[in-house]
Amino acid sequence: MIVVLRLGHRPSRDKRVTTHVALTARAFGAAEVWVSTKDVELEKTVNSVVSRFGGEFAIRTGIRWRDAIRSWKGKTVHLTMYGQRVDEVMRSLTPSSDLLLVVGAEKVPRDVFDLADWNVSVGNQPHSEIAALAVFMDRLTGGGSLYAETGGRIKVVPNPRGKTVIDSEKGQDG
Amino acid sequence: MIVVLRLGHRPSRDKRVTTHVALTARAFGAAEVWVSTKDVELEKTVNSVVSRFGGEFAIRTGIRWRDAIRSWKGKTVHLTMYGQRVDEVMRSLTPSSDLLLVVGAEKVPRDVFDLADWNVSVGNQPHSEIAALAVFMDRLTGGGSLYAETGGRIKVVPNPRGKTVIDSEKGQDG
Repeated sequence: MIVVLRLGHRPSRDKRVTTHVALTARAFGAAEVWVSTKDVELEKTVNSVVSRFGGEFAIRTGIRWRDAIRSWKGKTVHLTMYGQRVDEVMRSLTPSSDLLLVVGAEKVPRDVFDLADWNVSVGNQPHSEIAALAVFMDRLTGGGSLYAETGGRIKVVPNPRGKTVIDSEKGQDG
Repeated sequence: MIVVLRLGHRPSRDKRVTTHVALTARAFGAAEVWVSTKDVELEKTVNSVVSRFGGEFAIRTGIRWRDAIRSWKGKTVHLTMYGQRVDEVMRSLTPSSDLLLVVGAEKVPRDVFDLADWNVSVGNQPHSEIAALAVFMDRLTGGGSLYAETGGRIKVVPNPRGKTVIDSEKGQDG
């Protein structure tokens, strides 16, 4: 089971970026996303996607994150541009491990580097925690969750030249 | 050469997300990012990263995007949750192709689907154009640019347990 822990979320400033983190976690196969700051609007946004597109994904906000890391039974990976190379760490991991993936916002408290089992970079350049999370999960799982059946009311069918959306309450909307 | 074209950018609302798009493009090996809306602040933010971390990456904003797509000499890939599966398209592409990667914000004009050579999904679930861009580029290039030498003033050295930053104007800051 993979859980993504988002640190340093500030609801007004980070609304959109943290939404992207949460939906990326879901699409690439995480079971849950935990967010350090309480944010009911964020919960609503993510739960609305889950209710329409399906799956068992859960969001929890207002998480005491140090306790969450300390009490996690599996391994913890902190994604940071300062960490060791992702290709080196990937060899030590299996997709079936219980994995807590920690992603920060701009500044991450120093002790996160010590609490994590691995501090891992997806490149040592500044870019995006969303990008780092997506690539880490894609490499870990081989993209296995990307086209998994989630059993939701709404289903998008791959289409090379337009939109094919099946809404089981409305029928197909080509 | 890879160029990323960002559509539908609204400076106030999308500031942070488009910054992530631009920096992800740079970190994963694009040569340039083109943004539909003029945004001098965004240019400054991205150029500041380039000036500190190195490389030749360029940002252009206020792009007439239909003209840009029509006059592009290489292939055009539109990343969209409605498109055909990324694994199918990847077989047709080579990292050395001239590739224009188009990423939208929330709503993308219908004609983009016709102007592109391929409409490609990184999963048919709603998540993030940043995640889609990162995974597409990572798969296309095999992550070849992630740890490339960019020759910047600031260099981050992979570190499993902290931060190692070399600033050539200041010396090492462990």
